[in-house]
Amino acid sequence: MLIQEKVGQAVRILNEFDCDCWITFVRESSVLHDPMLDFLSGSNVTWHSAFIITRTGDNRAIVGQMDRQSVEELGVYRQVLGYVQGIRQPLLETLKELNPRRIALNFSSSSEVCDGLTHGMYLTLHGYLSEIGFADRIVSSEKVASSLKARKTPAEIARIRKAIGHTLEIFDRVTPFIAPGKTEKEIAAFMIHEVERRGLDFGWDKGHCPAVFTGPDTAEAHYRPTDRKVERGHILNMDFGVRCEGYTSDLQRTFYILEEGESAAPPEVQRGFDTIAKSIEMAAAALKPGVQGKAIDDIARGYIVSRGFEEYPHALGHQVGRYAHDGTALLAPAWEKYASKPFEPIEESMVFTLEPRLKVPQRGVATVEEMVLVTASGAEFLGEPQKELILIR
Amino acid sequence: MLIQEKVGQAVRILNEFDCDCWITFVRESSVLHDPMLDFLSGSNVTWHSAFIITRTGDNRAIVGQMDRQSVEELGVYRQVLGYVQGIRQPLLETLKELNPRRIALNFSSSSEVCDGLTHGMYLTLHGYLSEIGFADRIVSSEKVASSLKARKTPAEIARIRKAIGHTLEIFDRVTPFIAPGKTEKEIAAFMIHEVERRGLDFGWDKGHCPAVFTGPDTAEAHYRPTDRKVERGHILNMDFGVRCEGYTSDLQRTFYILEEGESAAPPEVQRGFDTIAKSIEMAAAALKPGVQGKAIDDIARGYIVSRGFEEYPHALGHQVGRYAHDGTALLAPAWEKYASKPFEPIEESMVFTLEPRLKVPQRGVATVEEMVLVTASGAEFLGEPQKELILIR
Repeated sequence: MLIQEKVGQAVRILNEFDCDCWITFVRESSVLHDPMLDFLSGSNVTWHSAFIITRTGDNRAIVGQMDRQSVEELGVYRQVLGYVQGIRQPLLETLKELNPRRIALNFSSSSEVCDGLTHGMYLTLHGYLSEIGFADRIVSSEKVASSLKARKTPAEIARIRKAIGHTLEIFDRVTPFIAPGKTEKEIAAFMIHEVERRGLDFGWDKGHCPAVFTGPDTAEAHYRPTDRKVERGHILNMDFGVRCEGYTSDLQRTFYILEEGESAAPPEVQRGFDTIAKSIEMAAAALKPGVQGKAIDDIARGYIVSRGFEEYPHALGHQVGRYAHDGTALLAPAWEKYASKPFEPIEESMVFTLEPRLKVPQRGVATVEEMVLVTASGAEFLGEPQKELILIR
Repeated sequence: MLIQEKVGQAVRILNEFDCDCWITFVRESSVLHDPMLDFLSGSNVTWHSAFIITRTGDNRAIVGQMDRQSVEELGVYRQVLGYVQGIRQPLLETLKELNPRRIALNFSSSSEVCDGLTHGMYLTLHGYLSEIGFADRIVSSEKVASSLKARKTPAEIARIRKAIGHTLEIFDRVTPFIAPGKTEKEIAAFMIHEVERRGLDFGWDKGHCPAVFTGPDTAEAHYRPTDRKVERGHILNMDFGVRCEGYTSDLQRTFYILEEGESAAPPEVQRGFDTIAKSIEMAAAALKPGVQGKAIDDIARGYIVSRGFEEYPHALGHQVGRYAHDGTALLAPAWEKYASKPFEPIEESMVFTLEPRLKVPQRGVATVEEMVLVTASGAEFLGEPQKELILIR
């Protein structure tokens, strides 16, 4: 079971970081779902709940009485306390017993997947801990939570491979459907039907998954498919992913719609595509444990700019896991919004996207997104990468 | 459009509370989705984003460049700024221009639906506001956000009525399917199929929706359907809701499985059901604008205890809206976990559940959940309430 596996991994990570106690403090998790909760509980919880993992494996959960049975059955908590009126007393008694030197809490400025604690919940917990003189023991659990998210177990990687397999198959199926005159919406509908037929979930908001962009006058990214029609001489690109057994894929593919009489893309389109493909190859070759994400982004960004294109207005790649955007370490430039993420070291068993983009004037956007697994010896593509522009006749 | 309607309502609420500026500060909203965002944006946002509503209606949004177009098209923001590297500069310039006396931010200790701001995001924003000397203007937006959530517009009430209509129809359809020997899982599967056939979403986690409990030895609530079989002489109850056009229903119904030769439920079962039905009637009769939720809970709780049953281990009722549990004011006892919620005054256009429960020894749990709209003159049932025990032959 994945939860047992991840909780076991969490205990080892606590030891590695010399952290004696990690608390994930949540409430009404079906409304606001802490991204770590999927590793700690098999179902949502309703009232103030604390999932306490310790370096000795003496794990505890304190939840509302009506949620107790579901959590207890997981078998990963030595003690599951259920309360009726309020969590304060059982929580403080548990913490006094454990008496941790530091309490790593589920918040982080840098990393959204390590930042499930709301400010209101922080105020509540800070108040409780002050009563027993523990408030100054609070630290961010970002390092622990990031590592748990990032270091994919074999079971997690297998699920991601499955999601990628479906995604590539659906790209293959939609290719012969793409033709001049078809709208972005029609292409998206074809793919949505395939996702639903296979009983999969969408990689992100259904309204934007797949994202389909054709020609030079599109929103380029993060926008829903429109009634714009596929035209000859234009580039079409798609951003698409599925969620399979809780794990996600996130891939982009670039197509060119041949003009009548053309048998190959015009040189500027081919050059744009080749620049993207080459930049991915170069970035992948450099991606290995110990390097920083910024260095990998620099390689792809630098190459694209050196070929005379504008730099892409986003990161080269992000981690993928339960969510399409999932993790702290990021292959990104040192922009304010990325905080410390570009400087977090890359580790073995992380899964990243590589997704540079560039504009080909009058034609559209060339953008390919691949997914790679970081192994001890370097990056391994998790699906067959796009080496050739897909030509639509 | 709902967003335009709710943003307009938000401006009026800011004036009512003498609050000049309300900021909802979010990032990666497909990972952690601030419950207010559905009223402010039609789609998720990726990077640090600020949705700023002001009492003059001079509303602003500051989002990542790639999310700009989707937000701009809503037509509710006078200005939508898109940034590439970081939100700090456009946000601080906007706030210096607006120069609000107080800045109501999306956090709250008491109310989870008003508490979408994570602690990490709070630290980031607090740091930014300190730079321009605005940090001490921060207050909680709980009152504003609660009112916006709670005061349902006619369009919202219409959607809730639709969701209730489907729910009652599905209860009607499953009734002839219930029979001795059927398992909780089989009954749930029948209803899940109905939800999917109608193209509806589930009211809460699919694994617990419907919740089906039969007989005296169940988890009673918040637990998935099991292989336990329906038996004659037992009570069966279900907790079920759907989401239709983004709005939710949440209802419970109680059934009794007649013994061979029985034509009515035994007296103790009938007395349990009648106690529940009567307590709902009494609570509904007292529910009107201006009263406190605790007083309504007291009525139902007190009546049930006066009839010799144990008190229910939860609140009498919660608000319903986009989520099954949705709102601040609560019909609840003054327990720690409910914080100030039982003391928030009831207002017109709130939608509440009424859901007392009690155990009938050796038989099961009698529990009915109805949904009511608070009008100027009192509570109106939003669907036909269950007045009679449903008898299964």
